[in-house]
Amino acid sequence: MRFGKTPIHSQYLVTREDFVACHNQAFIGRFDILGGIKDNGVFLLNSNWESSEAFDKLTCAMQQTIIDRKIKFYNIDGLKIAEEVGLGGRVNTVMQTAFFLISGVLDREEAIQLIKESITKTYGRKGQEVVDMNLKAVDRVNEALVQIDVPTMLPACNTPNKKLVPDGMNDFTNNIIEPIMREMGDQIKVSQMPLDGFVETGTARLEKRSVAAAVPHWIAENCIQCNQCSFVCPHAAIRSKLVKDEDLNGKPASFNTLKAMGAEGHQYKIQVYIDDCQSCRVCVNECPKAALVMKPIEEERANGEQANYEYFDALPNDVLANFKEGTVKGSQFKQPLLEFSGACAGCGQTPYIKLLTQLFGDRMIIANATGCSSIWGGTFPTIPYCKNKDGKGPAWANSLFEDNAEYGYGMRLAVRSHRKLLKLALQHLMEKSIDAALKETIGARLEAWDAVDAPAKENAAKLKAMLPKAMETACEGCAKLMRRAIELQDYLIEKSIWALGGDGWAYDIGFGGLDHVMASNHNINVFVMDTEVYSNTGGQASKSTPMGSIARFAEAGKNTSKKDLGMMMMSYGYVYVASIAMGANKNQAMQAIQEAEAYPGPSIIIAYAPCINHGIDMSMSQKHEKLAVDAGYWLLYRYNPLNKLQGKNPFTLDSKEPTLSVQEFLNAEKRYSGLKNIFPERAQELNDCAGTFFKERYEAYKKLT
Amino acid sequence: MRFGKTPIHSQYLVTREDFVACHNQAFIGRFDILGGIKDNGVFLLNSNWESSEAFDKLTCAMQQTIIDRKIKFYNIDGLKIAEEVGLGGRVNTVMQTAFFLISGVLDREEAIQLIKESITKTYGRKGQEVVDMNLKAVDRVNEALVQIDVPTMLPACNTPNKKLVPDGMNDFTNNIIEPIMREMGDQIKVSQMPLDGFVETGTARLEKRSVAAAVPHWIAENCIQCNQCSFVCPHAAIRSKLVKDEDLNGKPASFNTLKAMGAEGHQYKIQVYIDDCQSCRVCVNECPKAALVMKPIEEERANGEQANYEYFDALPNDVLANFKEGTVKGSQFKQPLLEFSGACAGCGQTPYIKLLTQLFGDRMIIANATGCSSIWGGTFPTIPYCKNKDGKGPAWANSLFEDNAEYGYGMRLAVRSHRKLLKLALQHLMEKSIDAALKETIGARLEAWDAVDAPAKENAAKLKAMLPKAMETACEGCAKLMRRAIELQDYLIEKSIWALGGDGWAYDIGFGGLDHVMASNHNINVFVMDTEVYSNTGGQASKSTPMGSIARFAEAGKNTSKKDLGMMMMSYGYVYVASIAMGANKNQAMQAIQEAEAYPGPSIIIAYAPCINHGIDMSMSQKHEKLAVDAGYWLLYRYNPLNKLQGKNPFTLDSKEPTLSVQEFLNAEKRYSGLKNIFPERAQELNDCAGTFFKERYEAYKKLT
Repeated sequence: MRFGKTPIHSQYLVTREDFVACHNQAFIGRFDILGGIKDNGVFLLNSNWESSEAFDKLTCAMQQTIIDRKIKFYNIDGLKIAEEVGLGGRVNTVMQTAFFLISGVLDREEAIQLIKESITKTYGRKGQEVVDMNLKAVDRVNEALVQIDVPTMLPACNTPNKKLVPDGMNDFTNNIIEPIMREMGDQIKVSQMPLDGFVETGTARLEKRSVAAAVPHWIAENCIQCNQCSFVCPHAAIRSKLVKDEDLNGKPASFNTLKAMGAEGHQYKIQVYIDDCQSCRVCVNECPKAALVMKPIEEERANGEQANYEYFDALPNDVLANFKEGTVKGSQFKQPLLEFSGACAGCGQTPYIKLLTQLFGDRMIIANATGCSSIWGGTFPTIPYCKNKDGKGPAWANSLFEDNAEYGYGMRLAVRSHRKLLKLALQHLMEKSIDAALKETIGARLEAWDAVDAPAKENAAKLKAMLPKAMETACEGCAKLMRRAIELQDYLIEKSIWALGGDGWAYDIGFGGLDHVMASNHNINVFVMDTEVYSNTGGQASKSTPMGSIARFAEAGKNTSKKDLGMMMMSYGYVYVASIAMGANKNQAMQAIQEAEAYPGPSIIIAYAPCINHGIDMSMSQKHEKLAVDAGYWLLYRYNPLNKLQGKNPFTLDSKEPTLSVQEFLNAEKRYSGLKNIFPERAQELNDCAGTFFKERYEAYKKLT
Repeated sequence: MRFGKTPIHSQYLVTREDFVACHNQAFIGRFDILGGIKDNGVFLLNSNWESSEAFDKLTCAMQQTIIDRKIKFYNIDGLKIAEEVGLGGRVNTVMQTAFFLISGVLDREEAIQLIKESITKTYGRKGQEVVDMNLKAVDRVNEALVQIDVPTMLPACNTPNKKLVPDGMNDFTNNIIEPIMREMGDQIKVSQMPLDGFVETGTARLEKRSVAAAVPHWIAENCIQCNQCSFVCPHAAIRSKLVKDEDLNGKPASFNTLKAMGAEGHQYKIQVYIDDCQSCRVCVNECPKAALVMKPIEEERANGEQANYEYFDALPNDVLANFKEGTVKGSQFKQPLLEFSGACAGCGQTPYIKLLTQLFGDRMIIANATGCSSIWGGTFPTIPYCKNKDGKGPAWANSLFEDNAEYGYGMRLAVRSHRKLLKLALQHLMEKSIDAALKETIGARLEAWDAVDAPAKENAAKLKAMLPKAMETACEGCAKLMRRAIELQDYLIEKSIWALGGDGWAYDIGFGGLDHVMASNHNINVFVMDTEVYSNTGGQASKSTPMGSIARFAEAGKNTSKKDLGMMMMSYGYVYVASIAMGANKNQAMQAIQEAEAYPGPSIIIAYAPCINHGIDMSMSQKHEKLAVDAGYWLLYRYNPLNKLQGKNPFTLDSKEPTLSVQEFLNAEKRYSGLKNIFPERAQELNDCAGTFFKERYEAYKKLT
């Protein structure tokens, strides 16, 4: 930001600063924070470090700069204030106030006055409670702000820059990822960039953002080994594994485990990846037995949790013993192939997609619509989708907002064509005189051509291994067929094609294509992360936004009801349709996802995904899913066309009769309750209307049963 | 076409011809047919003229050319053959055969052989019956082909070129329309073209294509004055009027009328516009009392029908006596503001839109999707939409295939904005000291601001007349408001906004936008002319195409069911939705159209429109609509959200229980029956499936009642 006594018209970024603030202590040693600060400038740090230690915590280079340039250095524990006044992790008001108190831009008293007026104006529509929290925060800044004594000469210093990527990584990591992590992407040469847009997956784990001040701590003795914490974690930062007793040799001292229930000879472990955790607390709130509590990250680090998660990470994945992967508990012993994304803390979208990768990730191809999921899913250069030990994981791509279903449809058609050609080559090989063992393996593959279970995958792997060798001694005709089979060997196992996106895509911008692709009757799966609003672009209303909700373009509350995408898709009769909310019913969600994937035609799952735009405490995002279903605000159902073949009703309503009034649900979310502060009468009217709508909708769906 | 002994690679059009054929005698004198024919060339004419008169019927210029260039002139009555073998008006096989017999391109015997093989191949999938008709036609050509004796010198000749436009027309007509009518548009200068794309309406009536060999003849004594012939006519070429007895002074001798039933002092007249009629016979088939028969056009012309329609046309329109315009009969006393379009004979679309113009045409704005209706509705330079005596008629525009609902939505928003501003100006005027009579008139307009009935229109006209005069003496502030009101005076009466298009638009390419506009909850009317296929582009399958129907991209029969657009739109709850088929139930169609227009929110009418692509006898197009409903193949229903406000079920099923099996309906249309010839088993399977589908759909809709 630039300030002047006369209006500033020229447009340029600041490279030499009078004032620099660092709002997160994790940035120290990661970014070049003070590189451009002017002599006698001011540096403001938000940290929970004691005044006595704050200077020493800086990197040596920063310390030197502060001394050399005579910088005034202030520290404040902004998070503490924010938490105590009820603002959770939001430190913006605190830091803004601190800025005006020490930057000299405005007179202190005048600044405070103006900030308070601005707060009243900005947060007014979010309710008096929010305004009061912010005003309280302002009042506490002066006292909490500490100017740190700076030595006149550099003391003995041993705080280097943080190491961001391990040694021995490839060029892409060293030349692209690392500079970008340090916000120095401008220095990357064009010649170093990938030529074709291809980016290696599994690199989000390099980031280790360490942004959580507090992280969950596992109280093993309370744990009932249900895996629900792992199931709901938006970042795959809390995981569970079954570990064979013998694999635990050499474990770190504080690496505690439980005797696994129902898995003889195994230990059970819940591990928090403290440097990847975003501190959303969803797991803590989901735990049915108080087996998780939040603890300061430094305490957990001191407890050896960094070494613990590194050790845990290296332990074998996908150890299920007798548990089935198609269950809530079993699925969480599978390696998540989506991890450590940059989604908001408590995000309602990522747990669903993480689950998809645990179930189908090793053969999954994703067409991703533009929106939040294209940001947390594929922001250059680090990718949260990753691979298992066999090098298999989701292939992911994003085209446009408006063509994602079609994009996925193209993937399906390509895979279908490849598999047809591959099958033909194998069938021709069966007619040739080839080695008996090879013939048997090919035969087994052809026999169970569409099977995707473990034996099928083993058979495919075996065949893949056999072919190159067989080709060496094969006749010319056979060799040609084998070459073709090797060319297409990635298609020995059927792919699982998913078009992912939000409601902005599925209900609005991409709906025309979505409808067309569903109508095409090909085997493609659509997963709609329904946040009921354009989340990533800043909260505009979509056709999924329910009546009465405040959103951009609907500042006075949306005056039309939510579009019924599920009903529209069910009208085809041959489309698998499900509406789910994992926080309300994990088993129903598991069942729907597996049915959709197994259905040999088009499938669509509409999943309720609470969002920071809803104006809720995101640590309770899963609980809000349950509230939504309890109030009949969100319906759980499945429409499986296969049931028709058996003479059964294809429709199953999984929602129970509402036990909560819609009003109670609406009151719990600021996107609805906020309207009362601005237009109380209209709010009442819209809420009444919405109440009737949800009630009538439930009745209409009940009639389908 | 060019022929050569070696393959022809160069691309150019022929301007000097060895052979010229004229397939329709109405073209004589209209186009420069023989301008480029070579010396000793061959000219083939399809006409019902006797050998003895054929030469004399040509224009003098043509006669001179034939003599000068020593042209061999042949005549054949191709229509007679086509009709006798069952091909109706299709003369292509006859003319093609004649070409090969006399052009010398191929040996005659070889040509016949090849034509027959080609017929078997081309029409095979339409059934043996069609093949046989065509083969029979081929066999009759040789005998019917007559070489006309040509005099060696030009005889006394008085056959000039036909006059295509009346004297005294404007520049656009003389400089643009007339040359284009004569296929000489290439000669129009850019500087003569309209700058902004604006084209005058009401110009299709200049065309007088006279393409009908036979036209309906009214047998007044059989007529029960039901107006159904006029209701169903696709071209507004048969009309009815009530005429005051005194207005009939000076009528032509053969202008017969009936004493009007239920309208004292009026005569009733049915008039055929013989030069605009396309000879589709739909009216004849619709007439409940055999009051219409087809007669050769020359006979009717001899009877004075040209003078009759000119006289009829000049009689006052919109004389309703005590009849209501909202009834089937009453609506047909209103002037159609869509007339003489170039739609196919028997078109199922145009009668609907013609009806819309009779009901709302004087205040109608049309956004037209690309497709048939953009061709028959707005092909440059002649426009079938026209104006009434007050100069009011539909304003029409076409944007793209994919944005037509949005285009209409923009029109609605613009009108809404204009009307808001106009109302504001008038309201402010009411507060000023203005002339009492003016104040009263403005007050009346404001009081009934949304009214569109006759008193409202009279009031608006009165106000329009008063304002300019009042402005002359008004105070400055008042004058400013009056100027604004005059600027916006066209909006004194609310507009009726219609987005028109076919299923290619509404179900497929424009569906995303259509859905969005319907969801917007603004007052816009959508009319879908559902031909169940991309008609104009050549018969590709759309999502509206039902299972088992043959179409492009579905040559083996479409294997998915028809999309249920109505159900999707009903899921909003606040969209007026109707499914109609005028041929099955004219009253239901009338009711739906009026309810849709009156509904103050979004409305959509899905209208069954038989199409030449269906492989049916288009003279029976209205009857096919009835068959479709009788078989439960097409549903009649209305969903009126206003009923909800009265605590009633918004849904009304107007279809009765099917009385005809779906199979019988499918067998009656070649798009379905044709599949049996190519894939009999698949045809059976798909038809069975379709049967189940339609049955289940009826049951599902019945549940909604």
